[in-house]
Amino acid sequence: MFAVIMAGGQGARFWPRSRKKRPKQLLDIVGSESMIRQTVDRLLPFVNPEDIYVVTGMEHVEELIGHIPDLPSENIMAEPVGRNTAPCIGLAAMRLKKLDPEGVMAVLPADHVILDKGGFLETLRNACEVAKSGDYIITLGMTPDRPETGYGYIKKGDLTTPLIPLLNKEGSTKRGVVESGLSPTRFEAYHVERFVEKPDRATAEQYVKSGEYLWNAGMFLFKVSTILRAIERYMPELYIGLLRLEPALGTEEQERALNDVYGELPSVSIDYGVMEKADNVLVIPSTFGWNDVGSWTAIDDLLPRDEHGVVAQAEHISIDTKDCIVYSPKKLVATIGVSNLIVVETEDALLICDKSRAQDVKKVVEILEREGRDKYL
Amino acid sequence: MFAVIMAGGQGARFWPRSRKKRPKQLLDIVGSESMIRQTVDRLLPFVNPEDIYVVTGMEHVEELIGHIPDLPSENIMAEPVGRNTAPCIGLAAMRLKKLDPEGVMAVLPADHVILDKGGFLETLRNACEVAKSGDYIITLGMTPDRPETGYGYIKKGDLTTPLIPLLNKEGSTKRGVVESGLSPTRFEAYHVERFVEKPDRATAEQYVKSGEYLWNAGMFLFKVSTILRAIERYMPELYIGLLRLEPALGTEEQERALNDVYGELPSVSIDYGVMEKADNVLVIPSTFGWNDVGSWTAIDDLLPRDEHGVVAQAEHISIDTKDCIVYSPKKLVATIGVSNLIVVETEDALLICDKSRAQDVKKVVEILEREGRDKYL
Repeated sequence: MFAVIMAGGQGARFWPRSRKKRPKQLLDIVGSESMIRQTVDRLLPFVNPEDIYVVTGMEHVEELIGHIPDLPSENIMAEPVGRNTAPCIGLAAMRLKKLDPEGVMAVLPADHVILDKGGFLETLRNACEVAKSGDYIITLGMTPDRPETGYGYIKKGDLTTPLIPLLNKEGSTKRGVVESGLSPTRFEAYHVERFVEKPDRATAEQYVKSGEYLWNAGMFLFKVSTILRAIERYMPELYIGLLRLEPALGTEEQERALNDVYGELPSVSIDYGVMEKADNVLVIPSTFGWNDVGSWTAIDDLLPRDEHGVVAQAEHISIDTKDCIVYSPKKLVATIGVSNLIVVETEDALLICDKSRAQDVKKVVEILEREGRDKYL
Repeated sequence: MFAVIMAGGQGARFWPRSRKKRPKQLLDIVGSESMIRQTVDRLLPFVNPEDIYVVTGMEHVEELIGHIPDLPSENIMAEPVGRNTAPCIGLAAMRLKKLDPEGVMAVLPADHVILDKGGFLETLRNACEVAKSGDYIITLGMTPDRPETGYGYIKKGDLTTPLIPLLNKEGSTKRGVVESGLSPTRFEAYHVERFVEKPDRATAEQYVKSGEYLWNAGMFLFKVSTILRAIERYMPELYIGLLRLEPALGTEEQERALNDVYGELPSVSIDYGVMEKADNVLVIPSTFGWNDVGSWTAIDDLLPRDEHGVVAQAEHISIDTKDCIVYSPKKLVATIGVSNLIVVETEDALLICDKSRAQDVKKVVEILEREGRDKYL
């Protein structure tokens, strides 16, 4: 199996820690290692380093290599500009086609957290078997444990358990879909009925209660040939661009070709461009403590809180302080009579944000961009 | 006239800006000069530098001299330990007795703000004339413009306008109390009926409405002989201590004598020790934009606020931020969806405090002291 780690994006919601030169995936927001390092480490028990590819922004290649020196540097693919996930995945698929068009590729974000690494690997192994067994576009859907309004959801359709030799050792195996006797709590796959955008609170509550919806985690598996066929069919413009790139990929011409072509590719997400249109999309319900670390409030779910709900990565004097996140590795912080605040202190900037406004941190970055205050970007 | 500036105390409520080595009176919390510098500058049109004395803590003498190099250094009197205002005033009076026992001394705090400097000087000139004219202990009482619960109050008694030759140029002057034709809005003096402690909100509202109460601003005028007689009568223990100090004052023996005697003096305020007991206390209603700068929230009254009630001494990106005080001279600060916060950033510490809890900033200092974290004190 190949793994393709998508390491684009900046994570503007993590300003002032995230910066243009130091995007979220290079930060150690959770744990002592950077998120890209943790993402690679999670895969190593199952995927060889030389089969792990990373697509990232050109400006981050150098620092990224420092975080994952164990990967061959030619496996780092540099986008001259970000074009959303469909071109990124298409690019990786076109590159891998040269190695093994029938190989399975797992596409994984670089900047998510997975608490149950064993559960993740087990799901990945199962999903890989399903992907191998047919022409499936597989997405991992997280079983929701709360009415999260920050995620997109996937509505499950019919149960369909494709052949899984790994799990089905004792039973008979046959190609195609099997109504097997496998324990559904261990492993199920469903057709996808539809993808839905981030819901409001009431809708999210309905979704969770219904048991019909899963979180869209942006993790996919498919054969290289499967995704390229789907792109050819649903995103022909992108496919033509990828064909133009194909000869140069993996050669010394790659960088020049990307510079020439990549910026012209349509900037579309794989969800919108392919997933929502294809009819061979399966979702595998998963429970391995996934978090997309979408904003500072994710810290609340990922780091230990004290008895007052305070997460402090700081020398902290806390007087009547409740439900705050305090990050200040170099300075003493005293808080008095405050609650629901995010406090983040870096070398040159300080953020104080009500938790309910965590999504608006990116507005600060927008203001800084608009005003050309580059040193804070 | 002599002026005695009381520059003891630390101003713990201004942590993290105020520190043991950098107390409030040495900070430029309001304006570009330190408060002690502003206090001296206010006096210079009326008092010669060599007639201005400062009583401060021994540990602050050196830095203090740097702020007021125009004063003779022998006019800086160093307390080996703080013993509240009565010993401080007694010490200064005993020192000045050697120069002119019938001279008038104005006792002024080093760390208050006065917005109307002209009004202050006019009041001081008038009060000096009253003090000269008899055996009066004069306190300046601020006409309250809001039901402040952070100040002590003085209840006015009978109107008594002592002889004021300065204002009474056109009328006849005679010694003693005159029911003069002076405009009462310009200058009045009252007997003090009583001093009252910091009131609760409802009581403060009554006080303001009644027109009978003034804020106790801790500014006093009296003849040197008058205050020494009052100390002899109402605080005999202190007086005996001062007599022990007397021979050494103004000589090379002063420091040694203070080290021997000062720590044994009773630690009592002049209000409690003398004012509340004496029957020759007058109060002069004053309106010159006085503020005791008692806590961070004083900033709201002293520095310009933007249309959202924000006072920012910082490069500040403000998103839906209301009624905050933001001090961060070296870092960009972004605030999102917060209100009523005090944010203070220094080299090594960060304070975030709800405005309603501004008085509790000193609790941080207490915690730091208890835990011996001296580098933050």
